[in-house]
Amino acid sequence: MPRFDGIFPYIVSPVSPDGTVRRQVLATLCGDLIAKGVHGLAALGSTGEFAYLDRGQKEAVVQTVVAAAEKRVPVLAGVSSTSTRDAVDQARRYESLGVDGIIAVVDSYFPLAPHQVEGYFRAIADAVAVPIVLYTNPNFQRTDLSIDMIVRLSQHERIQYLKDASFNTGRLLSIQDRCGDDLGIFAASSHLPVAVMMIGGQGWMAGPACLVSEQCVRLYDFCRKGEWERAAALQRRLWVLNDFFNRNGLAACVKAGLTIQGYDVGDPVAPQSPLAPSQWQDLERLLAQLAAPCDQDSGAVLEESR
Amino acid sequence: MPRFDGIFPYIVSPVSPDGTVRRQVLATLCGDLIAKGVHGLAALGSTGEFAYLDRGQKEAVVQTVVAAAEKRVPVLAGVSSTSTRDAVDQARRYESLGVDGIIAVVDSYFPLAPHQVEGYFRAIADAVAVPIVLYTNPNFQRTDLSIDMIVRLSQHERIQYLKDASFNTGRLLSIQDRCGDDLGIFAASSHLPVAVMMIGGQGWMAGPACLVSEQCVRLYDFCRKGEWERAAALQRRLWVLNDFFNRNGLAACVKAGLTIQGYDVGDPVAPQSPLAPSQWQDLERLLAQLAAPCDQDSGAVLEESR
Amino acid sequence: MPRFDGIFPYIVSPVSPDGTVRRQVLATLCGDLIAKGVHGLAALGSTGEFAYLDRGQKEAVVQTVVAAAEKRVPVLAGVSSTSTRDAVDQARRYESLGVDGIIAVVDSYFPLAPHQVEGYFRAIADAVAVPIVLYTNPNFQRTDLSIDMIVRLSQHERIQYLKDASFNTGRLLSIQDRCGDDLGIFAASSHLPVAVMMIGGQGWMAGPACLVSEQCVRLYDFCRKGEWERAAALQRRLWVLNDFFNRNGLAACVKAGLTIQGYDVGDPVAPQSPLAPSQWQDLERLLAQLAAPCDQDSGAVLEESR
Amino acid sequence: MPRFDGIFPYIVSPVSPDGTVRRQVLATLCGDLIAKGVHGLAALGSTGEFAYLDRGQKEAVVQTVVAAAEKRVPVLAGVSSTSTRDAVDQARRYESLGVDGIIAVVDSYFPLAPHQVEGYFRAIADAVAVPIVLYTNPNFQRTDLSIDMIVRLSQHERIQYLKDASFNTGRLLSIQDRCGDDLGIFAASSHLPVAVMMIGGQGWMAGPACLVSEQCVRLYDFCRKGEWERAAALQRRLWVLNDFFNRNGLAACVKAGLTIQGYDVGDPVAPQSPLAPSQWQDLERLLAQLAAPCDQDSGAVLEESR
Repeated sequence: MPRFDGIFPYIVSPVSPDGTVRRQVLATLCGDLIAKGVHGLAALGSTGEFAYLDRGQKEAVVQTVVAAAEKRVPVLAGVSSTSTRDAVDQARRYESLGVDGIIAVVDSYFPLAPHQVEGYFRAIADAVAVPIVLYTNPNFQRTDLSIDMIVRLSQHERIQYLKDASFNTGRLLSIQDRCGDDLGIFAASSHLPVAVMMIGGQGWMAGPACLVSEQCVRLYDFCRKGEWERAAALQRRLWVLNDFFNRNGLAACVKAGLTIQGYDVGDPVAPQSPLAPSQWQDLERLLAQLAAPCDQDSGAVLEESR
Repeated sequence: MPRFDGIFPYIVSPVSPDGTVRRQVLATLCGDLIAKGVHGLAALGSTGEFAYLDRGQKEAVVQTVVAAAEKRVPVLAGVSSTSTRDAVDQARRYESLGVDGIIAVVDSYFPLAPHQVEGYFRAIADAVAVPIVLYTNPNFQRTDLSIDMIVRLSQHERIQYLKDASFNTGRLLSIQDRCGDDLGIFAASSHLPVAVMMIGGQGWMAGPACLVSEQCVRLYDFCRKGEWERAAALQRRLWVLNDFFNRNGLAACVKAGLTIQGYDVGDPVAPQSPLAPSQWQDLERLLAQLAAPCDQDSGAVLEESR
Repeated sequence: MPRFDGIFPYIVSPVSPDGTVRRQVLATLCGDLIAKGVHGLAALGSTGEFAYLDRGQKEAVVQTVVAAAEKRVPVLAGVSSTSTRDAVDQARRYESLGVDGIIAVVDSYFPLAPHQVEGYFRAIADAVAVPIVLYTNPNFQRTDLSIDMIVRLSQHERIQYLKDASFNTGRLLSIQDRCGDDLGIFAASSHLPVAVMMIGGQGWMAGPACLVSEQCVRLYDFCRKGEWERAAALQRRLWVLNDFFNRNGLAACVKAGLTIQGYDVGDPVAPQSPLAPSQWQDLERLLAQLAAPCDQDSGAVLEESR
Repeated sequence: MPRFDGIFPYIVSPVSPDGTVRRQVLATLCGDLIAKGVHGLAALGSTGEFAYLDRGQKEAVVQTVVAAAEKRVPVLAGVSSTSTRDAVDQARRYESLGVDGIIAVVDSYFPLAPHQVEGYFRAIADAVAVPIVLYTNPNFQRTDLSIDMIVRLSQHERIQYLKDASFNTGRLLSIQDRCGDDLGIFAASSHLPVAVMMIGGQGWMAGPACLVSEQCVRLYDFCRKGEWERAAALQRRLWVLNDFFNRNGLAACVKAGLTIQGYDVGDPVAPQSPLAPSQWQDLERLLAQLAAPCDQDSGAVLEESR
C-alpha cells in the first residue's frame, strides 16, 4: 500500500434539486483534476456535503469517483454516522466499490463518552482492509478527539493518517510529537498548509484544491523541495480563497467556483443557499486573479510579494 | 382537528443489534401507555433516537405506533434532517402512514442563516395537512430559533405548537406573550412541567412519561384543576427521575427503565452504551420508590412533603 | 440571625463619569425601596456593576446602603475577585462596614480546577461571621459550580443561601433536593420567580425589583399565601420587563428606569452604553403600563388575563 | 520610535502570599533576560497575572521592570479593565512610569457591542503617546475582535501591533493581508512562532521565553536569516514546553520553571495552585533536556531530527 501524500482535493457532490447525482460532470471533474497533477481524490468530505446525502447518493458519488480515477491516484471516501453499525456498513460498502482508503468521521446527537468515540473508530478500522484517515473537525462536529485517544488509535494497524480541521496548528505538532511515523498528518482548509508541511505534514486535503489545483500542487512541490519562501509567498496568494470560503460557506463556494470554471455541479443541498450574486462576482474576480501568472511562479521571495 | 394537550410520552425505538425494529414490544408499550391515560404518543423524538435510525427503521416505528394507537389518542412523529427535500419526504411519508401531527426538527452541519432555518420549517409545514410542532433543543442541536422567527412561523396555519427542550422557562413565557393562542407550548424533559403548566402550557412531552405515565397524568390533572401545591409536591417527587436522566443519558435511561418494567426494548444504538450495572440498580430503586403510594396522592401539600 | 427571604432589589451603583459615587441619590433610592416594602437590599450585584468599580467606589456604595437601611432590612454586599486574598479582604471590609450578609462570586481568568473554586468560597466563609449567599451565573462568569460542590459548601455553617442566575429552574429543584434546609434558594432575573417560589424558594434578588418593587412584593405575597394563579397572572404581567432587560442589558435598563422614575443615577460605566432613545421610550411605556392598576390586583385568575 | 520586533518574554509578577511584589528577583530576572539577548520585555500579560493584581502591585511591577531594563530594550506593559476610564488611567500611569508601549486588553462582564469594544481601544490609544499593541485572546477573554474592527483600529496612528493568542494562524494571515504594514503581528504561546514568522510576523511574545530565552532568540534568528528548516527543527524541540504549559497552566508553569532556575518568584496568586510535585519533576526534566546541546544547534535539518 503506497503512502498517501500531497494534494487531495475534496470533491464536491453534484446533486440536482430532485436528488439525482450528476455523474457525468463529476467524472469529468475528477479526470481534469488528475490531469492537473493532484495526488489523490477525497470524496464525501465536508465540502462533499456528506452530511446532506442519503445512502444511494453517497454510493453513486463513490462509484463515479472510483471509476473516473482509473487507479491513477488513490481515492478516499468519507464515512460518517451517529451509529457504529451504519458506519461499518458504509465503510465496507465503499471498500467493495474500490476505494483506497476511508476518512472516518464520528457524528453524535447525545454526548458520547470517550470510550464510545474510540470504539466507533476501532469498529470501522476493524471492518475494512484499507487505511483509515481520522477526521477531526471541532468547528462543525460535536465531538473532539483527545491527543491521548489519537495516540491510542494510531497504534491500530490501519489507522494511518489524521486530517484535522481545527485551527490549531500547534496541536498538530503535539500530535506528531506523540505519534511519530505512526500517523501521517494532513492539513485541512482551516490550517495554513505551508505551516503543516513545515512541521512534517503529509499534504493537504481541502476544497480549494478543486478550484486552484495546479497552484496547490506547486505549493506542495515548493514545500517538498524546501523552497519555503516561495511556498510562503504562494501560500499568501492562495489564502484569500480560504478566507473567502470561511466567510461564505465551503460547499457553496466550491460549487460556485466550479460552475464559474464550467463544471455544472449545481447548488449546495437546500436549505443551504447558493452564493448571492455579489459573492459570486467576488469569487469570479478572485479566481481570475489567482489564474494570472505571478512573481511567485518565477521565484520571487516573500518580502517582495508583500 | 382537536387540540393536542396533556402528557405525550416520547416513545423509545426498540431496535435489535442487527437493526431490526422490535414491533411487538413497541405495540404492547403503546397500548399500555394509552391504558394508563396518556393523551398522545410522540414517536421519533430525541428519546426515540431519531438521530440514530435509518429511513426503514423510522418508518417501521411510525407504522407500529400508529397501528397500536388505533386512533384512541393522537400520534406525532419526529422529522429531522439536514436537507429540506429529505425532511419534506419524511413528513409526507409519515402523514401517509397516518400520523396526526409532525414534530419538526432542523439538523445542520455547516452553520445555517436564519432565513434558511425558517425556510426549512415552512417547507415541511407546506407539504402536509397535519399540525406541526416546532422542536427546539439548543443543548443537542447546532441551530436555535430566535423568538422573532418563532413568532413568524406561528403565523403559518399548520405550525401550531412548540416543544422546547432548553432549560429556559422564562423564554417560554416570552414566546407565549408574543404568540398568544397561535402557539401551544409543551414542556420537554429539561423544564419543570408544573412551571410550564402554570404559565399556560399545553402539556408535557418527555421520555420519563414512558416510565411513570400514571404519575405524569396525575401531575397534569392537578395542574388543570389548579391544585398547584399538590402538583408541586408531585413534581418534586418525580424530578429525581429527570435528574437521573440528565446525568446518565436519555435513551439509555428510558430503555433501561422499560426493560426493568418488563418491556424488552433492548439497548440504545451503539456507540451509545447501555447503563452500567450500578446505574441500573439506582434506576431500579428510583422506579420502586416512585411506584410506592405517597402523601401527595392523598392530598398532602408541598411543605409537608419536604 | 433572622433568615433572609422575600424581595431583595439589586441596588444600582450610581457613579458620575469622573468616578464619584452619588451617595445622596443612592440613599434616597434605598429609603424609598424600604418604604415600598422590600425585604432586604443587595448591593454590588451584577446590576450593581461590581465588575466595573474600584475598591473605593465599592466601599462608598456599601457605606451608603448600610447607613440608608438603618437596620430596618438586611443589607447584603457582593464580593467578587480573581484572587482569594482580595476577596477575603473585601468581605472583611464590608462586614466591618455593617453588612448583614455577603454574596460571594468567583471570577477567573485562567481556568480553575474545582478544588480551587471550592477553596475560594470556603476562604470567604471562614473570614467573616455573617451568612454567605453563593452566587452562580453561568451566563456571564467563566466558572460554574457543580451540584456536588454546592452540596459540600452548604455544609459550611455560614454558607446558607444560593442565588442562581442560570436559566435552569430544574437545576434549582435538584439542588434543593440534595441540600434541603441547609441552603435557601433565591431566584435571579433569569428565572420565573413564581416557579422558584413554587418549588420552595426563599425569594427573589433582581434588578427589576428596583423599578417595580411594590408589584414584586405583591408577587411574593401571593406566593407565600398560596394564591398561585394570582401570582402567575402577575408574573406574566411583570415578565415583559425581564424580557426587555435580557435584550437591552441589565445595568443600562435599571439605571434608565430609575432615571425615568426621578432618580438621577446616571449612566452605566463606559464602555457600556446607556439605552438608545428608542429603547428609552419603550422602557417608559412599559413602566407606565406596569404602574397602571390591573385585573390581577383584584384577583382575576390566570386564564382570564390571557 | 524604533519598531518592536523579536523575542519579548512575558515577565511573571513575583508576589508573596501577603501581596508584596518581590522587586529584587524581578529586577534580576529582567537583567538576565536582556543579557541572554531578548529584544524587549512585556510586563503584565496573561503570564504576568494582570488579572490577579491590584493597582499598587501592577505599578510596582512596571516600575521595577522599567528600572531594570535601563533603556537597553523596550518595555511594554499590559492594560486591562472592564472600564474605559480605569484603562485610560492605567495606560497614562504606566506611560509616566516610562514604558515604551502599551499592550491593550479589553475585559468585560456584560456582553459588549462592537462599537463599545472599539471605543475602549481608541480611548486608550488617544490617551498616550507610545505605541499600542492590541491583544486578543478568545480562549480566556469574553470578547473577540472582528478582522474588520482590527483593520479600522490599525488606522489609528498609535495602534501599531497585534498580539494574538488564538490558535488560528490562518486568521493572522488574513489580518496581515488586510492591514499590511499598518500592523505588526506577534505570535503568542498558542501559535507556532515559526509559522507566524514565515507569514511575515514581527516576533514572539510568550511566557516560555522567560525559561528558554536563548533558544527562543536562536529560533528568531534562524527565521530572520531564512534558515527555515533549522527553525522548524528547533521549533519542534521547543514545542514540548508549550505543550506542557497548555496542559498545566501558564503562570503556574513559568513561575515553577523560574524557581527551578534559581529565581525565587513564588507561587501563582491563589486560588490558582502551584504545580503538583509530579508536574514539577516533569518540568525539571523538560528544562534539562532543552538546556542540553542538540543537533539543531549545529544545523541538522528537519527530517533528521524526527
